[in-house]
Amino acid sequence: MTTIRDVAKKAGVSVATVSRYLNDSGYVSGEAARAVADAVKELKYELNPVARSLNTKKTNIIGLIVPDITNPFFPELARAVEDVALTYGYTVILCNSDENPEKEKNYIETLRKKYIDGFIVTSNQLDAPHYANIPLPIVALDRAINANIPTVASNNREGAGIGTRALLERGCKKILFLRGPEELNPANDRYEGFMDVIRHSGIEHHVAICPFHFTESEKIVESILQEQKDIDGIFASSDVSAAGALKAANTLGISVPDELQIVGFDGIAMGEMLSPGLTTVAQDIYKMGAIATRVLIKRIENQTEEQHFYEVPVELKIRGTTRSVEE
Amino acid sequence: MTTIRDVAKKAGVSVATVSRYLNDSGYVSGEAARAVADAVKELKYELNPVARSLNTKKTNIIGLIVPDITNPFFPELARAVEDVALTYGYTVILCNSDENPEKEKNYIETLRKKYIDGFIVTSNQLDAPHYANIPLPIVALDRAINANIPTVASNNREGAGIGTRALLERGCKKILFLRGPEELNPANDRYEGFMDVIRHSGIEHHVAICPFHFTESEKIVESILQEQKDIDGIFASSDVSAAGALKAANTLGISVPDELQIVGFDGIAMGEMLSPGLTTVAQDIYKMGAIATRVLIKRIENQTEEQHFYEVPVELKIRGTTRSVEE
Repeated sequence: MTTIRDVAKKAGVSVATVSRYLNDSGYVSGEAARAVADAVKELKYELNPVARSLNTKKTNIIGLIVPDITNPFFPELARAVEDVALTYGYTVILCNSDENPEKEKNYIETLRKKYIDGFIVTSNQLDAPHYANIPLPIVALDRAINANIPTVASNNREGAGIGTRALLERGCKKILFLRGPEELNPANDRYEGFMDVIRHSGIEHHVAICPFHFTESEKIVESILQEQKDIDGIFASSDVSAAGALKAANTLGISVPDELQIVGFDGIAMGEMLSPGLTTVAQDIYKMGAIATRVLIKRIENQTEEQHFYEVPVELKIRGTTRSVEE
Repeated sequence: MTTIRDVAKKAGVSVATVSRYLNDSGYVSGEAARAVADAVKELKYELNPVARSLNTKKTNIIGLIVPDITNPFFPELARAVEDVALTYGYTVILCNSDENPEKEKNYIETLRKKYIDGFIVTSNQLDAPHYANIPLPIVALDRAINANIPTVASNNREGAGIGTRALLERGCKKILFLRGPEELNPANDRYEGFMDVIRHSGIEHHVAICPFHFTESEKIVESILQEQKDIDGIFASSDVSAAGALKAANTLGISVPDELQIVGFDGIAMGEMLSPGLTTVAQDIYKMGAIATRVLIKRIENQTEEQHFYEVPVELKIRGTTRSVEE
């Protein structure tokens, strides 16, 4: 294998000069630069990326921290991050945090030492010291905002308003809102958006805290529907919860959408596989991941940022769990 | 920050001696070793992992190559790989290949130069030169076997026999088998398993090639069910195809499981969210990922391997798309 010494010999300069040239880390005369460039070309010298990392402290690797890749929202996000990273010559390390601050901290610490270039993070811990003091570029995705960390998120509040109106326009008279975990910013924004619209509608409503988890949502909705048989609309803050609600309705023999209409939030691929297909407030998950990756790489490469908060619009996708709009 | 020079000075030895000691790469006298160890401890010197990689050619990073993380089989696999890797102090780079040999080749080439320690690969290209000649530990998951590459897979053929018998025992008289892509080994093994059982049953059957894709499966099944109204059982080689079949039945107003019974293959989480819940031949996806990771890390760490082929048993999960067994 050709070494840096071979290149230096061929170019008639010192190894230090070759290193300065290759790593762009100090003065090299025009003449020396040309000689090194020619020698590199002639000898087909490939710069060892690990040696280069040691000089530049860059690896072209970014970390993606998600709570759990098996939650169907995150594979679509991961796919976008990897696709866009690849076009910039970056690869992606996948980290499942389980929302555990210790795990997040360990990941950041371990990968920082390996000169990872930056992180895209979906976490509720963004104000925790391991993020606040991190000496690396970082972009927050979907969740919580720290003033120093650029954030990419959907217009959750507005989106929830759209979902709520979809149920009202279709004649619902008593709506159950499945609110997500209270520690989750997007869930709270969706709750606000629901309240913005329902508050002025005069329509009866009921709010239940409900984790973004299929079986638990199914159980919660089954028990509520058994007690409150006049509920004719459910708006769930996540598609997984909406799927649980649909399953509960099926179990209880409640016909969807004739007796009960359901709207979800997320737009994950699973929604169309359900019967009937799930009407949902769809986030542009791929676009969120793509923007976050571009913003991160810009920061890594010290390019100026235009903005600090990126809001990605949602879109109402009408499928079979809702009826036609009443005239 | 403490440097290797500070350690050498403190220990009263040369930088080269400290480096040999830390990287375990040459003779160091017992006295020098103790002096270096004390200095490292006292100065709280942390060995730079990138510098270490340059010496050891190890990074404690492994690559996971999957066709597409948004196919719901792969997030569960990725989760297992990451969980197990973490317990051994390894992190995981996620690579979506889209079954594109050029993309796979580029990933392997790029990551090899960064001293990645090995790869876990789900690919149909395992006989391609970029795998056959790779100078790194590699483990094949789910797909195809190359004599030099350890493989972890389900007992697909046997599993398909179990799924087929489940339909026969429940009274099906005409069964549609949704065979996966012909270039896919596991799909072919499942086809063989179906034929093993159906061939001797005297039951009428029909085989359709069907990609592991929801919408395409839905269309294919819808058109077949419109023509062959006496089909009363469908065995799909993947849960995603089974979900498409269920949706087609719903669209056509065919009652599942009363008029038509459906069995899938995979055991992904989405199966229980469907209505009725999907009866399926469940692979132990997490276990497959966990075994592959352990085998890979053993190879990386030059531990002896006990075996070359790991077969993970499947399990029939009965849910709502099948009826009770006929007496």
